Amino acid sequence: MASSQKVQGKESAAPGPVPDGHLRLYSMRFCPFAQRARMVLNAKGIKYDTVNINLKDKPNWYLEKNPAGTVPALETPSGQVIYESLITCEYLDEVYPEKKLIPSDPFERAQQKMLLENYSKVIPYFYKISMGKKNGEDVSTPEIEFKEKLSKLNQTLANKKTIFFGGDSITMIDYMIWPWFERIEMMGLKHCLENTPELRLWIERMLKDPSVKATMFSTDDHKVFFDTYMDGKPNFDYGL
Amino acid sequence: MASSQKVQGKESAAPGPVPDGHLRLYSMRFCPFAQRARMVLNAKGIKYDTVNINLKDKPNWYLEKNPAGTVPALETPSGQVIYESLITCEYLDEVYPEKKLIPSDPFERAQQKMLLENYSKVIPYFYKISMGKKNGEDVSTPEIEFKEKLSKLNQTLANKKTIFFGGDSITMIDYMIWPWFERIEMMGLKHCLENTPELRLWIERMLKDPSVKATMFSTDDHKVFFDTYMDGKPNFDYGL
Repeated sequence: MASSQKVQGKESAAPGPVPDGHLRLYSMRFCPFAQRARMVLNAKGIKYDTVNINLKDKPNWYLEKNPAGTVPALETPSGQVIYESLITCEYLDEVYPEKKLIPSDPFERAQQKMLLENYSKVIPYFYKISMGKKNGEDVSTPEIEFKEKLSKLNQTLANKKTIFFGGDSITMIDYMIWPWFERIEMMGLKHCLENTPELRLWIERMLKDPSVKATMFSTDDHKVFFDTYMDGKPNFDYGL
Repeated sequence: MASSQKVQGKESAAPGPVPDGHLRLYSMRFCPFAQRARMVLNAKGIKYDTVNINLKDKPNWYLEKNPAGTVPALETPSGQVIYESLITCEYLDEVYPEKKLIPSDPFERAQQKMLLENYSKVIPYFYKISMGKKNGEDVSTPEIEFKEKLSKLNQTLANKKTIFFGGDSITMIDYMIWPWFERIEMMGLKHCLENTPELRLWIERMLKDPSVKATMFSTDDHKVFFDTYMDGKPNFDYGL
């Protein structure tokens, strides 16, 4: 099963226990939350097996492992399951000491968490606006709010005077924020970055990061998937 | 100012810098989120000054420190501000090594975070049902959902076979869950605990904890405050 990237649906057989020395990631290739974990796994050089889940037709065995039914989730050889993208990524950084992504200073850690908490209120706008547009709704109000939020994010970078959100090298916070900016063009929202020069520079730098490169899809590929997703028939296996 | 517990409103003068060796908590006496931080501060034996904030008439100086305008928030002598109750409590546990409340094992840490993430979806029910009742709405559906969620919480304790959510001694997760159970009777929701014996036992144990005792209000006092809160005119200084 590890040889197939195709999604496992309701009728699929439950995978066996995770072999000793292995780590299993439950994912979906186009999911931005799962990409967070994929970037962290890649950045830290952790080897892992992937099981992609059909999020429209979830296997019961998956719901038993992760009652939330979301991806990403990790499973260890002892059967421990960790879900929720932020919790999963923190767990990985705690268990695997190579290339620590979370700062050791408690205030810097708290700062990254506060920024992420704020950012969690930005994420819904990406969907609200792009879906609203598709449905022919007037999205001018959410778009103004979205631009204000991006402007604050830009201000955070401008105030820090650093290349990345946690300093001059890439840290956890950058990977947590990234996936939606990878998708911003295909969502038809690139113009919202007009007045955020530092954020645009950050995007350019992120695109050069090996873990971003290793996990990303092109705008065109994202668009094909997202169109099927918005039509309610996500083509999870697109491109395989 | 440290001598007064009364809330500081829009017209109040900004407090000076936090003196060396001090720690300042921005709070509101009846706020369940602030109580989380007060319990952690108490449990860890950390000395702190309190500034209570008028959450209906927030000072501009407070919004400059914490743009979210919420309590709790911490301020240090170097002017660092930490807000969001979970982030604040984690920060306290990281900075003050005495009586660690968060487990050192990464999977146990992740388990507490996952449980808290689930619990964050239970909290709104306390308000939805009690406010709905007050407004004469039919709350039978949210009440059924609430009971299901409490039942799952009960099952978590039953499966663990421990007295507290993190084991046989009290840990961070218990303090994070607690404040709404302290208020469950005054919110008129005690009957929702009928089929949750382990949860009721946990409540009894929690009521004996010194940090719960040191920060709690009686059901009667909570009720007086909550009634004024639901009427849109919270009596923040009730009892002073």
